[in-house]
Amino acid sequence: MPLVANVYDRNCPSRTVVNVVASHWGSLVLGALLEGTLRFGELRRAVGGISEKMLAQTLQALERNGLVHREVHPVIPPHVDYTLTPMGVEVSRQVRGLFGWIQGNMAGISAAQQAYDEARG
Amino acid sequence: MPLVANVYDRNCPSRTVVNVVASHWGSLVLGALLEGTLRFGELRRAVGGISEKMLAQTLQALERNGLVHREVHPVIPPHVDYTLTPMGVEVSRQVRGLFGWIQGNMAGISAAQQAYDEARG
Repeated sequence: MPLVANVYDRNCPSRTVVNVVASHWGSLVLGALLEGTLRFGELRRAVGGISEKMLAQTLQALERNGLVHREVHPVIPPHVDYTLTPMGVEVSRQVRGLFGWIQGNMAGISAAQQAYDEARG
Repeated sequence: MPLVANVYDRNCPSRTVVNVVASHWGSLVLGALLEGTLRFGELRRAVGGISEKMLAQTLQALERNGLVHREVHPVIPPHVDYTLTPMGVEVSRQVRGLFGWIQGNMAGISAAQQAYDEARG
């Protein structure tokens, strides 16, 4: 790892983290888990539109980066809990800040989209 | 648009903005433009690894959402400047906060990645 991480450098290891965290599904799963521990099925309902396969891949990437903790409960039927790690809580707060900005500015963004589309017929 | 935007709802218009802003290239282009106005070629150098096609698509999406202003200068040879709009500056600050967190936590994240990979041989 370079002494100073730089996400704009394509060869910096931090770029792989951007790829996981600043992604459509990665950001939404991180944001949803700030509410607390969720099972797989609960997460799937919390993040509208995510497929089982994409949720499994996203959770695996978040776990590998130390942002999500996966706990398997050996009950019948077995169930698996997903919880943010302390690092995950921190990055989720950043993601929630971004989502909060987007949600709070949809009027302006929608107006821009309409103006753009109308100017291009 | 619903009265209250909700990025977790697959049908909420805010989801399309998440798709642009919380994306690998969208976030990096927004972050790079916080430094100031850049031309296309300068942006391409600032965001390591982005292809011409992907940069053009990303800039178009950011412009449509009212986050980037595109200005064509009718000189020979013509050149095009890209600048964050006031909304773009705000969202870029959120993105930079996220990048700052990632860059500042690479030691912990790299350690987690190594532990994960070693546990799985």
